[in-house]
Formats: sequence, C-alpha cells, structure tokens
Amino acid sequence: MQELTLIRPDDFHVHLRDRDDLLHTVRQTASVFGRALIMPNLRRPVLTASDAERYRQDIEREAGEAGHGGFRPLMTIQLLDATTPAIARQAREAGVTAAKLYPAGVTTNSHNGVTDIRKLYPVFAEMEACGLVLCLHGEAPGIHCLDREVIFLDTLRELARAFPKLRIVLEHLSTAEAVHVVEELPDTVAATITAHHLILTLDDVVGDLLRPHHFCKPIPKRYADRDALRIAATQASPKFFFGSDSAPHPVGKKHCASGCAGVFSAPVALPLLAEIFERHGALGRLEAFVSLNGAAFYGLPANEGSVRLVKREWRVPESFPSDLVPFKAGETLAWRVVG
Amino acid sequence: MQELTLIRPDDFHVHLRDRDDLLHTVRQTASVFGRALIMPNLRRPVLTASDAERYRQDIEREAGEAGHGGFRPLMTIQLLDATTPAIARQAREAGVTAAKLYPAGVTTNSHNGVTDIRKLYPVFAEMEACGLVLCLHGEAPGIHCLDREVIFLDTLRELARAFPKLRIVLEHLSTAEAVHVVEELPDTVAATITAHHLILTLDDVVGDLLRPHHFCKPIPKRYADRDALRIAATQASPKFFFGSDSAPHPVGKKHCASGCAGVFSAPVALPLLAEIFERHGALGRLEAFVSLNGAAFYGLPANEGSVRLVKREWRVPESFPSDLVPFKAGETLAWRVVG
Repeated sequence: MQELTLIRPDDFHVHLRDRDDLLHTVRQTASVFGRALIMPNLRRPVLTASDAERYRQDIEREAGEAGHGGFRPLMTIQLLDATTPAIARQAREAGVTAAKLYPAGVTTNSHNGVTDIRKLYPVFAEMEACGLVLCLHGEAPGIHCLDREVIFLDTLRELARAFPKLRIVLEHLSTAEAVHVVEELPDTVAATITAHHLILTLDDVVGDLLRPHHFCKPIPKRYADRDALRIAATQASPKFFFGSDSAPHPVGKKHCASGCAGVFSAPVALPLLAEIFERHGALGRLEAFVSLNGAAFYGLPANEGSVRLVKREWRVPESFPSDLVPFKAGETLAWRVVG
Repeated sequence: MQELTLIRPDDFHVHLRDRDDLLHTVRQTASVFGRALIMPNLRRPVLTASDAERYRQDIEREAGEAGHGGFRPLMTIQLLDATTPAIARQAREAGVTAAKLYPAGVTTNSHNGVTDIRKLYPVFAEMEACGLVLCLHGEAPGIHCLDREVIFLDTLRELARAFPKLRIVLEHLSTAEAVHVVEELPDTVAATITAHHLILTLDDVVGDLLRPHHFCKPIPKRYADRDALRIAATQASPKFFFGSDSAPHPVGKKHCASGCAGVFSAPVALPLLAEIFERHGALGRLEAFVSLNGAAFYGLPANEGSVRLVKREWRVPESFPSDLVPFKAGETLAWRVVG
C-alpha cells in the first residue's frame, strides 16, 4: 500500500507547554490530530475549571493563528493532595475531560504530585458520578526505575475494584505486565501507548551512547516489553489507543548534567506508527488505534475529516523553533503526512 | 576512626587517554596510587610492545612533571582479531603486564574489538605460557544492555576451563551473577570492582533526571547487584580488588545528543571507597581491596610508602582542566586524601 487515508486521529496524551513554546507545539499537534488530551503539568499547573478554561483559550487562539481552527483541545486538571470533590465536579461541568494523577516525584513537574492516593477516594467517587475520566501516570515512586510501573499495577487493580464505574486510563504503557493487567481488568480500564515506546528499549537510551532525546518516563525497557506493546497496539483491541506523550524540552535541558525526561514526538508520531503497523502487517488496524478506540472510550464521536499518508521518504528536521529537537531528528522516515 | 593510613594503593584499571589530557589524568591517578594498569583503547590503540613502551614513557614523563616520579604504570596491549601469539610474547618480554580484550562494539573505541574470541585461543595459550594476564571487558555484544554481562559469564567459564593456568581478570563487575561466578571459578580468575559501581544503580543514570556523568559501561543495574558488589569488595576475598575504570571525557562529549560512556572517578575514588567501607563496618578491610589483593593476583609486591586519609569534609571541584567533570562534581565528601 502506497497511500493511506484515516479518519482524522486523536492524540490522547500530549504536553503542549505554555508561553513561547505553545505556538510551535500546537502547530505540530493540530496539523495532524483533530483532538488532543492536553496534560496539565505546566510550571504553573492546571488545577481548576478556570485554569483549564484559560489554557483552552490560549491553545485555541494559537491553533487558529496556525491555521488549524478546527482543532479541539480536550482539557485536564492535575490532581493534588488538596483537590476536592467540588473542584472535580466544577471541572466536569465546565467541560474538562479528565483529571491527571501524578504520584509525587515520578516525572517532570510532579514534585507537587499526590502523596497518598487513598486520600483522594472521595474525589474519585465524585469523578465516577460526574463522568470525569481518571488518567494515571502509572509509576510507583521511590523504587527502582525498572519496577515502578509493575508495582503500580496493584494500585490500578485496587482503583478499578473500588470504583467500578470510573473510567481509568493507564498512560504510556512500558511493560508486558501492564499490557496483560489492562487486558484482564474490566472495560472501564484502558491504556494509552506512545509511538516511542513502540520503538525504543533501554538499549536506545543507555545501550550504546547516551541518548537524551530518547530519555522518557517510564523508561523504555526490554524487547519483550516492546513486543507486548506492539501486539497490544496492532490487535485493534478497544482497550489500547494512541497517546503520544509528546513532551518537548529546549535542547539545553537535554544536553546537560541533569537532563529532563520527554520525547518530542508530535512531528513524527503518525508516520512512525504507519511504519510500525505496516511492518506488523496491521496497516488496516491503524485507524482503530489512532482514530476510533480512544474516542469511543472517552464517549466522543469520531472526528470529521481525514488525514492522508503517503509512502514517500522525508528527512525529519534537526530541530524546530524554540530549540526543540524532535524524535528521529535528522533521520529518514518512510511515511509522510500530506495535505 | 578519624584517620586511616593505607599501604599505597593500586588502581588495576584506568584510562589515562593521551595528548593534551594525559598530564591531567596522570596527575590525578599518580597523586594517590603507586601503580595503575593503563588501558590501551586510545584513539590510536596500544597494540604492541613498542606502542606500550612509547605510551609508558609518555606517562612516566607526565608523572615526573607532576611531581610523582615514583608512579609506575603497568602497561597493557589491546587484543584484536589480528593479534598473534608472537605479539603477546614480545609484549610480555618487554614488560607489558596484561592484554585487554574488548568484544567488538561494547564500549568506547571498541569498534575494532574482537569479533570471535575462539580465534584468539592460540594467543591465550601463549599468554598462559608466558604469564601475560588476560583482562576482559565482560559484556556480550548485540544483546540487551541489562543482560550483556550475565551472558558473557559463559565465555568466562569456557576460558577458565580451556586455559587453567591463564590469569584472567573480569573487569568492572556490575551484577550479582558475575560476583557469584567469579567466586566459584578457580583462583586464576579474579575481578575488579569500580568505586562508581559500588555507589550507582540504573536509578542514578535514568531514574530521575538523565545523568551523563553517571553513564558508564557496564550500565549500573539493580540494588541487589550493588549489594552483591559491596559484599564482594568489603569481605577481603583475594578474588576482588579495585580498578577504578576512571574514564574522562570532555564535557562536550557528555552534554550532547550521543554521550560517551565513562565516569572520571580518579580524583574521588579513594575517599568514596573509604566512605563505603566505613558504612559497611569494613574500614579495616579497605587495604586488602585497594593495596594487597590486586598486587598479589598480579604477582607484584605491595607498594612501598603509604597514603593517609582523614575524615574531613571537602567539596569536589565542578571540573578539572581540559573540561573534565569528575564523579561527584560539586558534592561534599566525608574523607579526604592528605599529604
């Protein structure tokens, strides 16, 4: 197949940042995706309905300026120890889609994360009642990086049991164990998979040279883990859908003594997915992964319109404005988004 | 104990580099260690007796200029596919101490490493006969970074069986499995342990922020591995001794998109070892690890003279000349080498 037309896809996990970066990040995402779930962990985090509304307006303004006025940001708030059921309900009433939980200390700007998940049970009960989705950075803090996701799965099981109607998304899967637990849990539990976790293992971060542009959370792991993720993504199960976790950092925060985690994949994610799905004989199931499963889980109609991919080589730019280095910078990709 | 006097220690694994870096690296090593086993993997590698003799003269000249004329470099040659038994014998006759085997592609400047270890069996037979020690970078190439050392242990077992009188050193242990295999093999097989592998786990490289100055080969692994290394080092077994693998890179080769592996530990290694041994109630066994076991394995007398450590805080410089950033840069250490 040399050409592929998909219902316009969604990105159910993206970091657009704010201030000067916003125009560039919105442009990259909105040129391909019809909707995106916007992560709230800004330097000044999105905590309430009014924070989310202000951020939504900023994003929509930038999307309009970039010529993508049809782009629809799906907003989130960040859960803190101090989040109340009323904050969750007000967010939902104002059109916020999900609330994101970062355990304290697990990733960028998560120093203010949640220290005791059980104390948020009243908030989860309210979210269950009003339909606000719970998005989880599924890593347990304070233990070895290779074990954090697997240990967190006990918490996931507990939440699914305690709140049987709460829709829960385990974000950016990185282990075979997580795939299997998500498969076994009820249909209220789903998961996102990034493009880069379908490609990288720990070898691509520390196996040869040290590659800061491959450094992300959760850390990519073993080949068997990557295999399990590829099977989950390409099998068209409604439980797994695309969330890029595209997370740009200026190059100075990557090439330094203490580099930040995050892969800026938005400019290349869809072509990379096409390449992976093609290699696994699953191009016909790419639309389910990027355009259908996530929308269905979130209770949204599929997007109107489409995107077209052609099999035509192109070279990924070495960097984008604001000194943002994309995933696969300088490499040649097989598929290209056109139109 | 507030003060500690040790027989002057040896470093049985160090990278001194060449050209402009040599004065600085020699100064750091020779100010503390009486002897050091000098790794041969320069940009233009040390392959023969005459290469080693030239490099020895360079090192001794720099040591003299730095005021450490008593420092004695123990020289190595690098084994290539093309190394012959005659090359090994000539090296031994010229006073070379060991030959270093890098499997192709496992670390810095190892693109010219050995592709088929069995083809070197005639060389190993000659080394066994003439007393040249075999030093192994014990990682199997082409497999996942967490498994490389463990998979290589089969090769180690095979070499120990095939050449029962060949002295073999497995360098820079990083796994509990390697500790246990070295313990079980005959007394002709020993191992070096670095200071940084006694301190770091994978969490210190990729667990929080990305730390290029902790990036090394073999990659530090789990807490259980580090525990096994600490037990091996502090138990005064003659099979385990100190080799720093101190390996400086200019900061531009660390803070970049493809960072080099290596920890520049020479300026801090002995104080760090004192801290670790003290914490494990083993200060009395530090001398065996750094001054006695390695010399005995290599058939050398203990050094004359001593070094003195006092428990007095000092701050590690942020960098050294030639833009070399040391391990623990900017941190405060408890023990200090004096005099």
